[in-house]
Amino acid sequence: MTGPRFTPLVASLPATVPFVGPEAQERARGRPFRARIGANESVFGPSPKAVKAMEAEAAEIWKYGDSTSHDLRHALADHHGVPVEAVLVGEGIDGLLGYTVRLLVGQGDAVVTSDGAYPTFNYHVAGFGGMLHKVPYRDDREDPAALLAKAAEVDAKIVYFSNPDNPMGTWHDAGVVSDMIARVPDGTLLVLDEAYVEFAPEGVAPPLDVTNPNVLRMRTFSKAYGMAGARVGYVIGHPEVVAMFERIRNHFGMNRAAQAGALAALQDDVWLADVRAQVAQSRTRIAQIAASNRLKALPSATNFVAVDCGRDGAFARKVLQALVARDVFVRMPFVAPEDRCIRISCGTPADMEVLAQELPRALEDAKGGQ
Amino acid sequence: MTGPRFTPLVASLPATVPFVGPEAQERARGRPFRARIGANESVFGPSPKAVKAMEAEAAEIWKYGDSTSHDLRHALADHHGVPVEAVLVGEGIDGLLGYTVRLLVGQGDAVVTSDGAYPTFNYHVAGFGGMLHKVPYRDDREDPAALLAKAAEVDAKIVYFSNPDNPMGTWHDAGVVSDMIARVPDGTLLVLDEAYVEFAPEGVAPPLDVTNPNVLRMRTFSKAYGMAGARVGYVIGHPEVVAMFERIRNHFGMNRAAQAGALAALQDDVWLADVRAQVAQSRTRIAQIAASNRLKALPSATNFVAVDCGRDGAFARKVLQALVARDVFVRMPFVAPEDRCIRISCGTPADMEVLAQELPRALEDAKGGQ
Repeated sequence: MTGPRFTPLVASLPATVPFVGPEAQERARGRPFRARIGANESVFGPSPKAVKAMEAEAAEIWKYGDSTSHDLRHALADHHGVPVEAVLVGEGIDGLLGYTVRLLVGQGDAVVTSDGAYPTFNYHVAGFGGMLHKVPYRDDREDPAALLAKAAEVDAKIVYFSNPDNPMGTWHDAGVVSDMIARVPDGTLLVLDEAYVEFAPEGVAPPLDVTNPNVLRMRTFSKAYGMAGARVGYVIGHPEVVAMFERIRNHFGMNRAAQAGALAALQDDVWLADVRAQVAQSRTRIAQIAASNRLKALPSATNFVAVDCGRDGAFARKVLQALVARDVFVRMPFVAPEDRCIRISCGTPADMEVLAQELPRALEDAKGGQ
Repeated sequence: MTGPRFTPLVASLPATVPFVGPEAQERARGRPFRARIGANESVFGPSPKAVKAMEAEAAEIWKYGDSTSHDLRHALADHHGVPVEAVLVGEGIDGLLGYTVRLLVGQGDAVVTSDGAYPTFNYHVAGFGGMLHKVPYRDDREDPAALLAKAAEVDAKIVYFSNPDNPMGTWHDAGVVSDMIARVPDGTLLVLDEAYVEFAPEGVAPPLDVTNPNVLRMRTFSKAYGMAGARVGYVIGHPEVVAMFERIRNHFGMNRAAQAGALAALQDDVWLADVRAQVAQSRTRIAQIAASNRLKALPSATNFVAVDCGRDGAFARKVLQALVARDVFVRMPFVAPEDRCIRISCGTPADMEVLAQELPRALEDAKGGQ
């Protein structure tokens, strides 16, 4: 019995998974984390209005969600001042990245990203047979000029760029990004992942221009809106490009309560401003904790901070492992030299106290273990 | 400016959508339906325990869902008496069908289904470049022998078979299905869609055998469990086949509250039994209403009933349009001769009263409109 005949591409794919979630780590460790500050989730939670909207929809969950996400999509279009045809709602940026890659990338097609950028994007590219070309970070930031040069060199179908960046938290100003947009080679799609943009200062997001078919902006309710577990993201782009998603997306894939929650969250500016303020405080607190341990926190326009552990990746990995062993869930960049850092998500004051307590001990553990 | 370069496959796909949802129809009509009995949703709703679990998780939605759906997957494995490695949870059967097709079907690969069976499966097959081969229904049921013969003839990668069937509500007994499983050509995967199996009498589902790599069973919380808007389905199969989904699935794609709701729903046997009883009553009521209009209701092992309007598809379509115009949301089979029927989902007694009132009028409208 040979069993099913998988495609040659699928048969060639690794069985590895981009991320091990905190629950899986907790089960492996046999006890819960005391501080869950590793996945850039918003510990400050969703707007109470979003919670109420999701609760109200729980008993209505027998109905499929609206396949067009009509109300949410219209609200997003109004919010951003773009036509509704320029907006598509999908199952988180992860899901939308998968659709985007599927739309464009066939076996052997070139795709460009930064070495050490979002692994889930790379997972999708590999999953559709694309050929990934990576350029290094430059001074802990993604390097627009190098990304564009590589895209031109390899005739890329997609160039992926996140601003602000994950995992470093760094950013480029809108002028740089606008210049990048203007220089995208024709026939290349710039996927501009702005998952963290609500945390960034004014002047980081360039104006939306949905007349340009060469750029897709990706946004999410997972970060500033505190709804990672709901799976709601969206793209903004040229209506003709956005319309292509209709050919392949899972039309009834959106959770009904998540749609309602996102709509309510979008309308609660006060909550968003409060989350931003708490995130800013927590960033400052992480930098203080780092400094008091003679470590340097990188500047961040996100809800996390990369903390330079001052030595190489092996050392940072030991610090990370020691923190995890001490019940503090954090993550770290995958690639040198950025992997000299650990990546700490903003947390509540209680989370920060746990961090303040455990970081010096983790550093001791890491030094002792050498 | 040429814009992005879509794959040749994507560029060739139609922009059509398998289903227009009831909300979209309501917006087009300018008023709501009085009876929402068209999408085989469970108007009896989810278990109150599931509602409570989802409500409790709303404030926790800032956390990503567990990427392995650990608790739900273990509960399902216990429930079905199979190893946990034989179960995979995904974003509804729609999502899981997409993954399954992607695992197996490349450009030009043959896939077999019944003409008039689930359009969303066909959508996925087209979306990955597969070549669909269809065999007719036989006496308003899917035809296992014809499906197998066609699969052998065209060397199919997948043969799709739903039992009980949608859109007809008919079924085959477990013996027939077991025989079909035994005869699946080696190298062909039988996708056995059992979305409605909880409504079927004993003896419709053959025993689960996860040592057989040639069959995937698909189940869902969308129908009997009343959670269509949550997007929770699962596959049961050979662990080595199930493991292949890890290579391509969206690992953090599950809504966190939906996972919790499904787990609670699975544990509420009393609610499930009650829903089954109400569905059985509603099926009887639909048959009565049909009979009192001199129409024949087909036997059903699902939460819907196909009602034979007694003439051809054009007439049934007029009946359907008249019902929709009278604020009753129903659907109908797409293909002759099954399209002589309209498909009515089970509803509350109030829904059934609306149907009883409007069906004779709709029949008058349809006859008058000829």
